[in-house]
Amino acid sequence: MVSSAIAPAWLEKPADLNALDARLWPAVRRSSAGEMLIGGVPVSSLVEQFGSPLYVVDLDVLSARALMVKDALTSGVARDHRSVHVFYASKALLTSDVVRTVAAHGLGFDVSTRGEMEWVLASGVEASRLEFQGNNKSDAELRRALTVGVGAVVVDSEWEAKRLAAISAELNVHQRVMIRVNSGVHAGTHDYLATAREDQKFGIARGDLDAVIDIIASAEHLEFVGLHSHIGSQIVSPDGFVEAATRLLELYAHYSAHHPLDTLNLGGGFAIPYTPVDPDSNLEAIATALGELLDQWDAKGVRVPQISFEPGRIIAGPAGVTVYSVGTTKSVLVGEGDDAATRLYVSVDGGMSDNLRPALYGANYTVRLANRHSSAPAQLVRVVGKHCESGDIVVHDDYLPSDVVPGDTVVVAQTGAYCHSLSSNYNAVGRPALVVVEGGEARVSLKAESVDDVLSRDAGLAFGSASSEEA
Amino acid sequence: MVSSAIAPAWLEKPADLNALDARLWPAVRRSSAGEMLIGGVPVSSLVEQFGSPLYVVDLDVLSARALMVKDALTSGVARDHRSVHVFYASKALLTSDVVRTVAAHGLGFDVSTRGEMEWVLASGVEASRLEFQGNNKSDAELRRALTVGVGAVVVDSEWEAKRLAAISAELNVHQRVMIRVNSGVHAGTHDYLATAREDQKFGIARGDLDAVIDIIASAEHLEFVGLHSHIGSQIVSPDGFVEAATRLLELYAHYSAHHPLDTLNLGGGFAIPYTPVDPDSNLEAIATALGELLDQWDAKGVRVPQISFEPGRIIAGPAGVTVYSVGTTKSVLVGEGDDAATRLYVSVDGGMSDNLRPALYGANYTVRLANRHSSAPAQLVRVVGKHCESGDIVVHDDYLPSDVVPGDTVVVAQTGAYCHSLSSNYNAVGRPALVVVEGGEARVSLKAESVDDVLSRDAGLAFGSASSEEA
Repeated sequence: MVSSAIAPAWLEKPADLNALDARLWPAVRRSSAGEMLIGGVPVSSLVEQFGSPLYVVDLDVLSARALMVKDALTSGVARDHRSVHVFYASKALLTSDVVRTVAAHGLGFDVSTRGEMEWVLASGVEASRLEFQGNNKSDAELRRALTVGVGAVVVDSEWEAKRLAAISAELNVHQRVMIRVNSGVHAGTHDYLATAREDQKFGIARGDLDAVIDIIASAEHLEFVGLHSHIGSQIVSPDGFVEAATRLLELYAHYSAHHPLDTLNLGGGFAIPYTPVDPDSNLEAIATALGELLDQWDAKGVRVPQISFEPGRIIAGPAGVTVYSVGTTKSVLVGEGDDAATRLYVSVDGGMSDNLRPALYGANYTVRLANRHSSAPAQLVRVVGKHCESGDIVVHDDYLPSDVVPGDTVVVAQTGAYCHSLSSNYNAVGRPALVVVEGGEARVSLKAESVDDVLSRDAGLAFGSASSEEA
Repeated sequence: MVSSAIAPAWLEKPADLNALDARLWPAVRRSSAGEMLIGGVPVSSLVEQFGSPLYVVDLDVLSARALMVKDALTSGVARDHRSVHVFYASKALLTSDVVRTVAAHGLGFDVSTRGEMEWVLASGVEASRLEFQGNNKSDAELRRALTVGVGAVVVDSEWEAKRLAAISAELNVHQRVMIRVNSGVHAGTHDYLATAREDQKFGIARGDLDAVIDIIASAEHLEFVGLHSHIGSQIVSPDGFVEAATRLLELYAHYSAHHPLDTLNLGGGFAIPYTPVDPDSNLEAIATALGELLDQWDAKGVRVPQISFEPGRIIAGPAGVTVYSVGTTKSVLVGEGDDAATRLYVSVDGGMSDNLRPALYGANYTVRLANRHSSAPAQLVRVVGKHCESGDIVVHDDYLPSDVVPGDTVVVAQTGAYCHSLSSNYNAVGRPALVVVEGGEARVSLKAESVDDVLSRDAGLAFGSASSEEA
């Protein structure tokens, strides 16, 4: 086996493939017999009860993450005269169980469509705890948001400001409004670019703010209360946040002279690790730096009473894992002669339909054997799905015990965020169930789709439509 | 307006933004009043009846494409002693209307999952016309395929050969079997790489074929009848196909000495144009080159009675368009000083949930104003969706009339393949309806999903689950 020749440089061969790094696997440990327990439930029991593949979310971990994030941001940023408000980014993962767990810690919800709004409301959260985002809200969505009474609408364009003014008048509803600013700051993975990144769809450029604010300020039912920015994803360090906050504070200072501003929303984008070498976001450092920055502006007389954040991935990501069954393995010889190396392709029963991120972003993940302990040597693997597409990759590069065989169960870490959200029925595959585990008990949170479910949208099939039977 | 500074080099400014290039818009023309007619139906009527966004597939175009592809491949490759069989790649687009339209021309169906198999069968196609593909078919899928009697199973691994041998014996069912070969040929967009591309999940390497063939040949109920390869997507020219066919023919010559081989399946991957500068695949040239190659092997005594192909995109892609309503527009200044340029962001009511290809592959598309004629000058635009993600792009770069405004309707060309297939409920957005147009009449083929539909999988919501009401 000469497989190390094609292992990427960043990938370290684990000393013990049975060990579970608590940073990547907060919801998982192994039984004394060597089987993975997810939230205390044996993986074999989960597969037997709920099938495979399977999303599993540990609500106790989710709860702890929500509290940790809220506490870290609050302790760094809040002062006696300055409160911190945390809105969970619903797009990361949305089920009523997730909503209730996060809501129990007093978090609000960032929603960006009618669907997300209704889902959070149906889960029992008061509309006042919602912030309604999005670059292209429809009239129907704005009408619904004002009717139910969302806490704030974050306006993203001049067109929207005009429509919101008209709709608030039509409905005779008072609405708090924030404005999303295209700050030009873009913070990316592990780093930040101070270079301008105006070339994107979100927010209003500084030069266009006056016009939009005039529309809002002159609308009888709208109250312009704050500014919003969001600078990217998988951000580790404070620099990008501090740069964006500084630009927002300059605007806040300027506009608060004539408008009743009380809030800055600095968005989300806090990183989580997907592999052992990925850094965590330094939440304490980010919060401390922002708190100190705000103190400096306090001293200049620019006091912001409310600071908001919109974390999603950092709350939901670590709470979830995905369980797969191995269907086939195949050893592929790559290269020739001295450069020849062997990669073991491990095919599982899911793929890009349940986790698009490896195909969409080239994202890396970590996989471990779940149903048993193994002392076999480490084998470089690529975990692939069952879809008819060569880009259907679940884990680009990791190690599994070389005795992995069809029938084994493997689990992928850190799949709580943006996996189910982006799931599809590609190749007419039904989406897996999403099971939640709480206090050692598992239950279905999102039902699996059967083949009949997938076909049920077809109006031309008799069982799919009563009307087609009459036709 | 200085926007041309940021237009990509390949993008030509159209002389007439109202004109519709028949190569990109086979299903669409404009009425004398300037409105788009899709399959003869005014776009305003489609939106009024079926909503927006909306997938529209012209079954007459689909039918013509299926026939054209079948005829082109047959006329180039078939001889008195050699037949051509075309299997539609179901993954490209699957609805019962599509299946019936394609099946009417005698095509078979390439299916790769239980879902695709059931969908084609439920649409009224005999199982004998199905080829069952896939790198990781489950035992349940194989059992079902043998029970219904698919025409062929394309075996992809040694593990699968063993399982298929056992299942065919258990069910006492005779099954024609082909083997997918990892040929090492990879043909990509507009070009082909002769360099080895063994490093992927599909197929069996030449060095591993003997072992797999031994398993199949020694299984009482399995008949080893052919070899299969698929070399890539968006292939324009014959070279990659000829190279792959040559490698398969060498194997065919070797193995037909001891096995009852009768078929080579050369897969699909024929290109379609998405923009005016994209070439069509040269189907006649590909077929002619393959026909001549096979004639040469005939002369050597290696006669292959059946040649198969698996086109998907080239049949379904041009038959479909996506209709969107414009919600907002936003002019964004990119760069500074002499390099400054303006890009108009046009936000529509769909996005990466209904067309993932721009985000997933960086794919380009062509967009035109649909509801009216416009004489306004051409403005460089980026059409973006309504999702909370900066990568949510529908058309990276194209021109629209500069008077495009909210309320306008725009249509994107060539979305029949791999758009609905890869669609999701991201941001809790329901998938749009897919409407078919036939003989000037439109009807729903795939029903739209409402917000309630999206929430219906949530077991924790009362209306989503009878059992949760009892709990």
